[in-house]
Amino acid sequence: MIITICREFGSGGRELGKRLSEALNIPCYDHEIIEMIAEKHGFDKDYISHVSENSIKAAYPMTIGHRFSYTPNHVSKQMIEVVTAQRRIIENFAKQGDCIIIGRGADIILESYNPLNIFVYANKEAKIKRYMERAAADEKLTFAKLEQKMSEIDKERAKHRALYTNAKWGDKSCYHLCVNTSGIEIKRLIPGLVAYVVRQWFLAQVE
Amino acid sequence: MIITICREFGSGGRELGKRLSEALNIPCYDHEIIEMIAEKHGFDKDYISHVSENSIKAAYPMTIGHRFSYTPNHVSKQMIEVVTAQRRIIENFAKQGDCIIIGRGADIILESYNPLNIFVYANKEAKIKRYMERAAADEKLTFAKLEQKMSEIDKERAKHRALYTNAKWGDKSCYHLCVNTSGIEIKRLIPGLVAYVVRQWFLAQVE
Repeated sequence: MIITICREFGSGGRELGKRLSEALNIPCYDHEIIEMIAEKHGFDKDYISHVSENSIKAAYPMTIGHRFSYTPNHVSKQMIEVVTAQRRIIENFAKQGDCIIIGRGADIILESYNPLNIFVYANKEAKIKRYMERAAADEKLTFAKLEQKMSEIDKERAKHRALYTNAKWGDKSCYHLCVNTSGIEIKRLIPGLVAYVVRQWFLAQVE
Repeated sequence: MIITICREFGSGGRELGKRLSEALNIPCYDHEIIEMIAEKHGFDKDYISHVSENSIKAAYPMTIGHRFSYTPNHVSKQMIEVVTAQRRIIENFAKQGDCIIIGRGADIILESYNPLNIFVYANKEAKIKRYMERAAADEKLTFAKLEQKMSEIDKERAKHRALYTNAKWGDKSCYHLCVNTSGIEIKRLIPGLVAYVVRQWFLAQVE
């Protein structure tokens, strides 16, 4: 039972993944992936995080499925390593058994494992409300800045996805189930989702 | 528990609604709506069906929420009656109790009832396969004609929706849950969906 979760920033996709993993008693991987890469490659953790989340655009010309148009410099080589390592680590997680993987194009990377792919989304008001409730006092942004941040992070996620596939980030055709978290507490969605996931899994086993 | 289902043509949304209604033991309304209008208004059933599914475009300028830009002729008046009657009947269904309503903009019409809104979709290959398996031998179309038909029907559904709302047909933000039926038998999705729906409903009650 491998579940991948793609999510809009602020939609609660990460919380949903964590809660689902607790309910199903299977591991959930998110920032852990970055930390493992950092440990393995000795990169500075903040740098890796920066590459994965914000600067992947720069890595685009030299990655999987794309021909090199120039000789990568030192930074580019590091980026290739990061993306390749992420991919390898995600594959290793899947080989180890049932798990939930959040983000990082895991649905595409693990296609051959037939994962159940979930997209988590919400309307803008709900995402802003969620962020404001959860952000530390000194982290809080103005609405305008937050809207900009939300849009930028989602765009970077879409670009990260474009490294692996032409299938568009957030396009419902990429996912088995799209869950709208607007106006509902994430924990309220879990029992139903657990039932959905377990039944699918059970039915696949007995077939 | 009011559930509305919007669906792409060929995705199995109607089968999903019917099976869900059987599992939940609540009524499901689809073509029955048209039949009730036909009985009530004495219109020819085929005509009503034609208006609802194919010619709603012509009714656009004179419907709910839009100002009349010209005096409707006889046919236009009939169309207003059809759309108004559909709306009234859908509201009556909801007043009578738990039910599933497929299509006809029920999610928008019944907004005040807080329905659970589901969108059912599939990739093109899956929809063509589904249609070909189910169509009577004399109904079968060439692939090209079927693709055209699929696209036309979905466009008309989108236009019908535009009578009630600016919220775009098929845009996941309109729905609580979007279910991809590609490569899976509809009946396999039902146990999980039932659990999802019942838990949501139960949690809403105990709150």
